[in-house]
Amino acid sequence: MVNTKSNPGLSQLDELCVQTIRFLSMDGVQKANSGHPGMPMGMAPAAYTLWTKYMKHNPANPKWHNRDRFVLSAGHGSMLLYSLLHLCGYGLTLDDLKKFRQWDSLTPGHPEFGHTAGVEATTGPLGQGISNAVGMAIAEKYLAAQFNKDGFNLFDYKIYTIAGDGCLQEGVASEACSLAGHLGLNNLIVIYDDNYITIDGDTSLSFTEDRAKRFESYGWNVQVVGGDGNDMASFEKALQNAQNEKDRPTIIQLRTHIGFGSPNKQDSHAAHGAPLGEDEIKLIKKNYGWDPEKTFVVPDGVIEHMQSGNAEADKLEKQWNKLFADYSEKYPKEAAIIKNAEKGVLCENIDALLPKYEAGVEATRKASGATLNALMPNMPMVMGGSADLTPSNNTQFKGVKDYQKDSPSGRYIRYGVREHAMGAVMNGICLSGLLRAYGGTFFCFSDYMRPAIRMAALSGYNPIYVFTHDSIGLGEDGPTHQPVEHIAALRAIPNVLTIRPADANETVAAWKVALENTAGPTALLLTRQNVLTLDQNKYPAAANMAKGAYVLVEQENPDVIIMATGSEVELAIAAAEKLAAENIKAQVVSMPCWELFEKQSKAYKDSVLPKNVKARVAVEAGVEQGWYKYIGDSGIFVGMKSFGASAPYKKCYEGFGITVDAVIASAKKIIG
Amino acid sequence: MVNTKSNPGLSQLDELCVQTIRFLSMDGVQKANSGHPGMPMGMAPAAYTLWTKYMKHNPANPKWHNRDRFVLSAGHGSMLLYSLLHLCGYGLTLDDLKKFRQWDSLTPGHPEFGHTAGVEATTGPLGQGISNAVGMAIAEKYLAAQFNKDGFNLFDYKIYTIAGDGCLQEGVASEACSLAGHLGLNNLIVIYDDNYITIDGDTSLSFTEDRAKRFESYGWNVQVVGGDGNDMASFEKALQNAQNEKDRPTIIQLRTHIGFGSPNKQDSHAAHGAPLGEDEIKLIKKNYGWDPEKTFVVPDGVIEHMQSGNAEADKLEKQWNKLFADYSEKYPKEAAIIKNAEKGVLCENIDALLPKYEAGVEATRKASGATLNALMPNMPMVMGGSADLTPSNNTQFKGVKDYQKDSPSGRYIRYGVREHAMGAVMNGICLSGLLRAYGGTFFCFSDYMRPAIRMAALSGYNPIYVFTHDSIGLGEDGPTHQPVEHIAALRAIPNVLTIRPADANETVAAWKVALENTAGPTALLLTRQNVLTLDQNKYPAAANMAKGAYVLVEQENPDVIIMATGSEVELAIAAAEKLAAENIKAQVVSMPCWELFEKQSKAYKDSVLPKNVKARVAVEAGVEQGWYKYIGDSGIFVGMKSFGASAPYKKCYEGFGITVDAVIASAKKIIG
Repeated sequence: MVNTKSNPGLSQLDELCVQTIRFLSMDGVQKANSGHPGMPMGMAPAAYTLWTKYMKHNPANPKWHNRDRFVLSAGHGSMLLYSLLHLCGYGLTLDDLKKFRQWDSLTPGHPEFGHTAGVEATTGPLGQGISNAVGMAIAEKYLAAQFNKDGFNLFDYKIYTIAGDGCLQEGVASEACSLAGHLGLNNLIVIYDDNYITIDGDTSLSFTEDRAKRFESYGWNVQVVGGDGNDMASFEKALQNAQNEKDRPTIIQLRTHIGFGSPNKQDSHAAHGAPLGEDEIKLIKKNYGWDPEKTFVVPDGVIEHMQSGNAEADKLEKQWNKLFADYSEKYPKEAAIIKNAEKGVLCENIDALLPKYEAGVEATRKASGATLNALMPNMPMVMGGSADLTPSNNTQFKGVKDYQKDSPSGRYIRYGVREHAMGAVMNGICLSGLLRAYGGTFFCFSDYMRPAIRMAALSGYNPIYVFTHDSIGLGEDGPTHQPVEHIAALRAIPNVLTIRPADANETVAAWKVALENTAGPTALLLTRQNVLTLDQNKYPAAANMAKGAYVLVEQENPDVIIMATGSEVELAIAAAEKLAAENIKAQVVSMPCWELFEKQSKAYKDSVLPKNVKARVAVEAGVEQGWYKYIGDSGIFVGMKSFGASAPYKKCYEGFGITVDAVIASAKKIIG
Repeated sequence: MVNTKSNPGLSQLDELCVQTIRFLSMDGVQKANSGHPGMPMGMAPAAYTLWTKYMKHNPANPKWHNRDRFVLSAGHGSMLLYSLLHLCGYGLTLDDLKKFRQWDSLTPGHPEFGHTAGVEATTGPLGQGISNAVGMAIAEKYLAAQFNKDGFNLFDYKIYTIAGDGCLQEGVASEACSLAGHLGLNNLIVIYDDNYITIDGDTSLSFTEDRAKRFESYGWNVQVVGGDGNDMASFEKALQNAQNEKDRPTIIQLRTHIGFGSPNKQDSHAAHGAPLGEDEIKLIKKNYGWDPEKTFVVPDGVIEHMQSGNAEADKLEKQWNKLFADYSEKYPKEAAIIKNAEKGVLCENIDALLPKYEAGVEATRKASGATLNALMPNMPMVMGGSADLTPSNNTQFKGVKDYQKDSPSGRYIRYGVREHAMGAVMNGICLSGLLRAYGGTFFCFSDYMRPAIRMAALSGYNPIYVFTHDSIGLGEDGPTHQPVEHIAALRAIPNVLTIRPADANETVAAWKVALENTAGPTALLLTRQNVLTLDQNKYPAAANMAKGAYVLVEQENPDVIIMATGSEVELAIAAAEKLAAENIKAQVVSMPCWELFEKQSKAYKDSVLPKNVKARVAVEAGVEQGWYKYIGDSGIFVGMKSFGASAPYKKCYEGFGITVDAVIASAKKIIG
C-alpha cells in the first residue's frame, strides 16, 4: 500500500503510520477549508518517531506528573497534533478531526490548553510555545531538585517542542533560548522544522542568519540533520544524543520539506496556510497508493501499531504511582506539598502569615516585598523572579536562593532584561501543573510581555505580575518609563485581574487574592513612591479590596462619590475631608480591581455606587478610558490626558493636575 | 591637572575632555538626585572619540540631511549625551544640565526626540534605540540608492549607536540585528558597552551567551576591544575597520567599567541607577586632581578643543548644500521629491489618485491593497513591508521591488516574523526626516510591537500600521489570532490615530488621513472578510470619516442612535432599516476613529450624537471598554465579552451575539 522509497529508520508499517498522519492532516484542513497542511506533512516522520519511540507519555492519563511534555510551538500545524492525539489514543475521535476549526469542536484552529486533552500549551502566536517550554524545563529541574530523593526519581521528564522559522525569528524565543542556555536546561529538546519556507516565500527573503551558530552562541547543543525530513535513523541519533546531553538544551535542526509529498505544492508557501485543494490531495493519495476518493482513512494496523506502547506506558505510570505512594510514607512532608499543589493550595495558613500595617507611609512595592518575605518561605511551590529589576521591584524575598544551573533548587529566577521571555517562561512554570510563578518589571514594560500576558489570560495560566513604578509617580525617569495607558490596556484583556492597591494593607490583601486566583493571571500595580497607609482602626478593612471596590468613607445620602485607585486614594480621602468642612458629603470608594467588582452582586455594587448619586468623580493617574462606565454621564475624571514628563513625582502630579484641589473642584463643578 | 595614567590614543587634553564628560554626568545625576552615572563614566572615552574624531555632524544644524546619526540606545545614560551636546555646541547650556530631570527642562531623564536638539531618537526602553538604528540605516541605504548620482553623493552617512547589555538582551534587538545582518547594513555601527553589570548585579547572573558569536551568526562584522574602556587607539582601529566595512553591519564589543574612576562603586551595580553620593564624587574629583568642592566645571580649553572641528563641519554642510543646489539643477525631479519630503508632502495629487468603489462587497484589507496600488507608485518616499504576512496584509503594491542587500533601491521590506523589529525599524525609517514607513501584520500581533508603537506615539514618529484580520471576523484561526481587546488597547495610547474603516471607500479615505497625519502613528484596522461597500450615491461621502465619526443614516428626532465601526457598520444599517419598518427612527453613526472625533467642534459632535437622545447602542466586535463615554448611562454595547473562538466567521458573529437581531433587541430594550 505504501508507495514511497524506503526511508532509514522507518519500517513499512511506520511509513504507513506517517502517511496516515500526513493524510489526516491534509484531509482535516481540506474539510475545514482552512488551516495549515504543509507543516504536518513535512514533520510527520519526526513527530511520529518522537511520539511513538521516544516520548514517555501515557495517553490514558494526559496529566501524569512525570510525563514528558510536548509543545507544538508552531501551533498552526495543529492538525499534526490532533492526528497524533487521535492515533495515539488520547480520546480525540475521527469525528473530532472532521470538525477541525468548527464552533465548539475539540479541534480549534490552534491548539488550546485546557480545551483538548493532551494539548500541553496554547500555541499559535509564534515564539510563545518554545518560550513556554523553557519555563516547563525550569519547572522540571526545580521539582527534581526539590523533591527527588535517593531511590525516588519522582521527576525526570523532558520537554520536547517543535518550532519553525517563525518561532526562531520572534524576539521572545531569542530571549528565552538565551536564558535556557544560561541555565543549562538539558531537559529541553527543540526540534527545528527547517523547511526554508515562510508565508512570504523562501526564508532567503528575510532569514539568512546562521541558526546553528546562533544557538551555539547561547550555549546549546546543536544537532543538524540533513536529508528530506524522512531520514529517521539520523534523527533518532540526534534525539538520543539530546537525551544523553548533561549540560545544555538541545536543538535538532531538521531539514524538512513543507507539504512533503505534494507534487505541485511541496517546498512552496502555497502549502503553508491554505488547503491543498481536492485535486492535489487526490493526486497525492494516488501517488502513495491510497484510494484518492476516500478521506479520513486510518488503515488497518495503524492504530494498533501506534498504540502498541500504551500498555507499557500505563504500567510505567502505575509504577510511578507506587513510587509516589512509597515516597509519601517516607517523606510525608514533601508529598503533602505536592498533593496540596495539585489542588492549588500553596500553604495552609496564609491568613496567619499576612503582615499587618499600622497607619503611616509605605510604598506599595515595599509592602509587596514584605508580603513576599512573610509568605514565600512557606510556599515552596512558587518561583519568583524579575526582569533585572530586583532591587526596584522588591521581588526577592529574604533568604531565597537563585535558581541557576548549579542551584536548581533555588527559586528566584534572574530573567535578565527579557520581559517577554519572563512572561512566557512564567506561563511555562505554571503549566507544570504544580508550580506557580511571579515576576517583576516596571509597569511600563508590561507592554514588552503583553503577548505572554494574553496567552495566560486566554489559557487560564495563573502567573502573578509584580508591576511596580505604576504611574507618573515614578517621577524622574520620565515619559518613556511612566505608564499612563497601561492600566486601561491591561483591563481590556479578558480574564486578567488587574489590581492597583491603595496602600500597604490593600497590597497584602491583593497578594492573597492573587495567590488564590487560579483561573488566570493577576497583575499587581504598585507604587514606587510612598503612599499613606490607612489606619485600619479608622477605615474599613483593607481585605475588602477582594470585592474589587468598597466604601472607604461612607455617607448617608452622599452629595458626591469619589472613586480612586492606588496612590490616588489618599487624594480622594483628603478631598472628601476638605469637602466635609464645607458640608459637602463625599463618599469615598477605593476601587482597586474592576474585574472583581464586576463579579459582585447587583445589591453590593449599588451599595458602593448608589444609583441615585449621579455626581461622581474618579481619580486615577492613568488615561480615562473605561471610567465612564462608573462615573456616568455627569461624571468627571481626574487623570492623565497625555504622556507623562520627567520631574520629581510631586511636580508631575501637580503639573498634570492630579491633585486634591482638582478633585474638589471637579466635585463642586458637578454638584453645581 | 588630569591625574590619570596615559591612555593609548588620548592626549592629555583629550583626557581632560573625557573627564569633563564624566564629571558633568555625575554632577548632573547628583544634582537631580536621580539618574544613571555609571554608564557615562564608563563610555565617556569612546563617546568622546566618536563624536570629536569620527562622526560627521554639524552642531550648528542638527537637521543636516547628510549628518551621521548617533542613537543612545542605552538611553538611561542620557547625561552622557547631554554632556556631549553641551560641550560640542548644540546649544544645550550648562544651566540645562543643571536642570537634569526637572519639569520642563531640555534634559529629561531619558533622551526625547523633538524635545532636545541633537537627540536623534527617544530612547530608554531597552532595545528600541538599536532597532531604530537599523531602520535609520535602511533609510540611508534607500536614499543613497534612489538619489545618489554620478558625482552627487548626496547621502552617505552612517548610523552609530551605543547599546548596553540590556539592549542586547531584549528580543526586539535580536530581531532587528538579525534583519540588519541579512540586509548587509554596513552603514550601521554599534558600540556595545560591555561592562558586565546590570541592575541585578553581574551579567553572569543571566547573560552568559557568547555575544560576539551571536552577532557573527547574524552576519555582522564583530570587533572586540579589550582593556578598560580607555584604550582609544584600539577602539579607533575598530572604528576605522567598521567605517571601511563594505558588506556587514559592525558591532564593536568594548570592554568597559561602569562607574569608571569611582573608587567605591566602579564595577558595581551601585553605580548604575543612582547618584554616586557627594562624598564619592568628591573622592573621585580629588583623585583626578579636580577641585572636589566645585560642580559642573568645564575646564579651560575643553570647549575649544571639542568644538575645534565645528568650523570644518559647517563647511562640510555648506559644501553639501552647494552639491544639492547643483543636483537640483541637474536632477530637478529628484530634488523636488526630496524638498517635498522635507515638508511632509508625499505626492501632490493624492485626491486624484484615490480609488473609488461602487456599491458591492470588498474586504477592507483588499481596498487597502488597491489604495496602495494607486498611491504608492507616486510616493517614492514611502517604504512598505510586512512581518511575513504579505499575501494576507495586501501590503505589497504592484511592481514594487523588494528592499534587499542587493537591491537597496527597492522599497518593500521583508521583515520576517519579527513584528517588534518591524515597529522599531519603521520608527527608524521615519526618523530619517525624509521617509515614511508602513508595515503590516495581523491586528492581534500588534501586541508584539506595542512598545514600538508607544515610542512612535510618544515621540511623534509617523509610521502607518496595516493591521488586518481585525476581529473575530478572521474566523477559523481562532482566539489566539482574534483580536478582541486590541482596539481598546490601541485607543488607550495617547497620540495614536486608531482607524477602523467601515468599508472600501472609508478605507481609501483612511489612507489619506494616515498619510497626512505627520504628528504620530496611524493604525488602520482592516477586515479579512468581505464587508458591504456602501453606495456613495445613497450615503454621505466616506471622506467624512476624516471627522472621526459621521452620520450615515440621518433622522429628525431619532428614537435611538446606533454607533458602529468597521465591519459592524453594515449590521447597524441593517438594524436601522428593520427598525424603520417598525416606525422606530434609528440614526446610524459610522465611528471609525475616536481620536479624530474628539478633535471636532462641540457643535459637530452634538450633531452626530444629539445630547437629548439618550437611547444609544454601539456595536463593535471588540471589548466594551471606553464605549460608555459615547453610549452613556442608558446605552447598550453589543460586542465581545470574552476571547473569541475558532469557527467560520459568520458562526463566530452568531455565537457571540454580534448580530442585526442583537442590535435591534438592544435598541428596543432601551427605548422600552
